Amino acid sequence: MNINGTHYRTIWHDSADNTTVKIINQQKLPHEFEILELNTCDDAARAIKDMYVRGAGLIGAAAGYGMHLAALETPADSPDVFDQYMKYSGDMLIRTRPTAKNLEWAVLRQLAVVLSKKTIEEKQQAAFNTAVAIADEDAEFCRNIGLHGVKIIEEIAQKKNGTVNILTHCNAGWLAFVDYGSALAPVYEAFERGIKVHVYVDETRPRNQGASLTAWELVNHGVPHTLIADNTGGHLMQHGMVDMVITGADRVTRAGDAANKIGTYLKALAAKDNNVPFYVALPSSTFDWAIDDGIKEIEIETRSENEVRYIQGKSENGLTSVLLCPEETAAVNYGFDVTPARLIEGLITERGITRADKHEISKMYTDKCVE
Amino acid sequence: MNINGTHYRTIWHDSADNTTVKIINQQKLPHEFEILELNTCDDAARAIKDMYVRGAGLIGAAAGYGMHLAALETPADSPDVFDQYMKYSGDMLIRTRPTAKNLEWAVLRQLAVVLSKKTIEEKQQAAFNTAVAIADEDAEFCRNIGLHGVKIIEEIAQKKNGTVNILTHCNAGWLAFVDYGSALAPVYEAFERGIKVHVYVDETRPRNQGASLTAWELVNHGVPHTLIADNTGGHLMQHGMVDMVITGADRVTRAGDAANKIGTYLKALAAKDNNVPFYVALPSSTFDWAIDDGIKEIEIETRSENEVRYIQGKSENGLTSVLLCPEETAAVNYGFDVTPARLIEGLITERGITRADKHEISKMYTDKCVE
Repeated sequence: MNINGTHYRTIWHDSADNTTVKIINQQKLPHEFEILELNTCDDAARAIKDMYVRGAGLIGAAAGYGMHLAALETPADSPDVFDQYMKYSGDMLIRTRPTAKNLEWAVLRQLAVVLSKKTIEEKQQAAFNTAVAIADEDAEFCRNIGLHGVKIIEEIAQKKNGTVNILTHCNAGWLAFVDYGSALAPVYEAFERGIKVHVYVDETRPRNQGASLTAWELVNHGVPHTLIADNTGGHLMQHGMVDMVITGADRVTRAGDAANKIGTYLKALAAKDNNVPFYVALPSSTFDWAIDDGIKEIEIETRSENEVRYIQGKSENGLTSVLLCPEETAAVNYGFDVTPARLIEGLITERGITRADKHEISKMYTDKCVE
Repeated sequence: MNINGTHYRTIWHDSADNTTVKIINQQKLPHEFEILELNTCDDAARAIKDMYVRGAGLIGAAAGYGMHLAALETPADSPDVFDQYMKYSGDMLIRTRPTAKNLEWAVLRQLAVVLSKKTIEEKQQAAFNTAVAIADEDAEFCRNIGLHGVKIIEEIAQKKNGTVNILTHCNAGWLAFVDYGSALAPVYEAFERGIKVHVYVDETRPRNQGASLTAWELVNHGVPHTLIADNTGGHLMQHGMVDMVITGADRVTRAGDAANKIGTYLKALAAKDNNVPFYVALPSSTFDWAIDDGIKEIEIETRSENEVRYIQGKSENGLTSVLLCPEETAAVNYGFDVTPARLIEGLITERGITRADKHEISKMYTDKCVE
C-alpha cells in the first residue's frame, strides 16, 4: 500500500543483499515513520515479541524471514546440525507469541521444506525462497479477501443507497499482513471502486492498534473514518449507525470460533443483539485445523500489566508514556478473546465467503481440513 | 469515606461560612489530591460541565449547592425577580449535562422549595437547607444501597465458599456520590463484614474513571482489585472469572432501562451470554418516572472528540496529555449507552432490590411512580 505516494510492504528483504530484512516499526506509528533492519533470527523474534511487527499475517511473514536469517547465521557444517539449529530457531520463534496461528504455520512450513533438502546450500536457498513465498502468498491471499469481501459491501451500498458504515476492531489492515490486510482489504477495494464507505475505528485498548495503526492507514488512503472508544460500538449499533462489522482473526478453529484481539467478542455480541452482520476476514493460514472449541482450546496470550497501566502517545516532548492508574493498582492483560462461531455471519477467506460452520468450512477447504 | 485516615465527602460546605462550597478535584485523581472552592453558581456549573465533579449523585448534589450559591449571589430585591434568577440558574445547571437524571431532579426540587417561600431571606434559607438535605439524603440512600446489595454478595460468597469476583464499569463509588457510592456501596459493606471480595475495574475509556477513580478509591480502602481494559470483561466471563457485575446508572426509566457510562451495555450482553448476574445500583433520584424506552427516549450526551483523541496521565513531567491517533483523525464521543431492562438481573435501590420491570419498580415506588 502507499505511504505518501510510495509503495510499501510491511516487511521485505533488501534485494541487493538478501541477508537484511526490513520492517516498518509499528511501535512508533502514527507519530513517527521508521524503518528497522532485522539481521538475525533473534532480531526477528524480538521484533515479534515486542510488537515492532504484529498482526496475524505479518508475524507469520516475519517468522518466515526469521527462519531465513537463522539459515544464514548458523556456523553448522553438517546438514544434521544445521537442521537442529533450524528446529531450535523455529521453537524460539513460535514461543514469542502463542495465540496467532500464522506464526506456527510459517515456522512449520519452513521446517518441512528445509528438512527435505540435502545440502546446507540447498537448505539455505529453500529457506529464502520459502520466506519470500510466504510473504507473497500472504499479500495475494489478502488481495483475494478484498475481492470476495467487497461483494458484501457492494450489496449493502445498493440496498441502502448511501454510505456504508463499517465498524472494525484492532488493526487488520495492511499493517497486520504483508499488504492489503484482511478486514480492511474489502474496505480498500470498495473505496477504489468508488463505493461510499466510512469506518468506525475502535481504538483497541490496551495497545491502541485501532487509534494508532488503522486510523493511520485510513488517513494515508483517504478513507473516511471516525475514531471511537472501544466502549462505543454497542451504542452505535443500537442506533442503526453500523451496517456491518469486519474484524481480522489470529486463530480460527475448524468449527469457526475466532480468536481475535481482546474485545472482539463484545462487538460480536452487540452485532448479534442488533442484527448487524459480523464478519471475520482471514487467510487460510489462520485456520487451526486441529481444534473445534476456541474458548476451551485456544491459548490466550497474557502480556505485561504495564500495557494497561501506561499508555504511549505524543506530547509536546515527543513520544511519551503516561501512567493511568494509582501506582499501587495492578492490572491483567489478556491479548485476545474468542468469538464463538454462532455470533459470526461469515468468514471471508481467499477462496470466498463461508458460514462459520465446521461442515461449510471443510467443504471450502477439503485439501486442508483432513481430520 | 476515608482518605489516609481522614473522613471526606465529595462535596461539603464550609461550616463556619455557608457561602463557600468545597469539592475534591476529580480531574487530577489519582495522581494529585486537590480541594477546590465553589463560590458562585457559575463555578458549580463549570465544575459539573468540565467534570471536576461527576457521577450521578454528585452532580445532583453539586447542582443543589449551585442553587444555594445562586440564592446568595443575586442582588434581586424582590421575591419575584429572585425567583426568576433562581429559574435561570436552574436552567443553566440542567444544561451542563443532559443524561444524568439526578441533576434535573435536584434543580427541580430546589425550585419547588424556593418558589414556595415568601421572603428572600426564607428562600435563601430554604435553598441552603435543601442543598444540605440533598447531599445528606444522597449519602443515606447510598448507605442503604450498600446494606441491600451486600446480601447478594453474601449469598454468592456462601455458595462459592471463596472470593467473590465483581466486575464494575466506570466509577459508581463514593466519588460519584456524596458518600458510599452506588455500585461500590455493597462492595465496601461486604469488605467491612470480612467477606472476601475482589473487583475487576474496567478502565472506562475515554475518560478512564475506572483506572483513575475506582482504582484510587479501592486502593484507599484496601479492597483487592485488578485493572482491566474495557475490552477484557467478555473474556473473563467466558472463563468463569466473574461472579457478578454491578454498575451504577445515570438515568433509569420506569421500565428499568438503564443509561450508564458508554460500554455498560456491552458488559451486560456478555453477562447475559455467560449467565453472570448483572445488577444496576441506583438511588431513586436516578429514576426517570416519565419514560419507558431508554434507547429511544434518553438523550445521550456527546462530549468533545479530544477526550478520545488525547488522554491524560502522569509522566516524568507531571500530569501530561498525549495524542493517541494521527492529527488528521476525527473522533466521536458518546458519553453513555442504554442497557435494556431484559439484560438486568436486578436494580439495587435504597428501598431494596427489585427486578428491572415496570410493574415491580412501581410496586416498590408507589409514591413516585404515579403516571
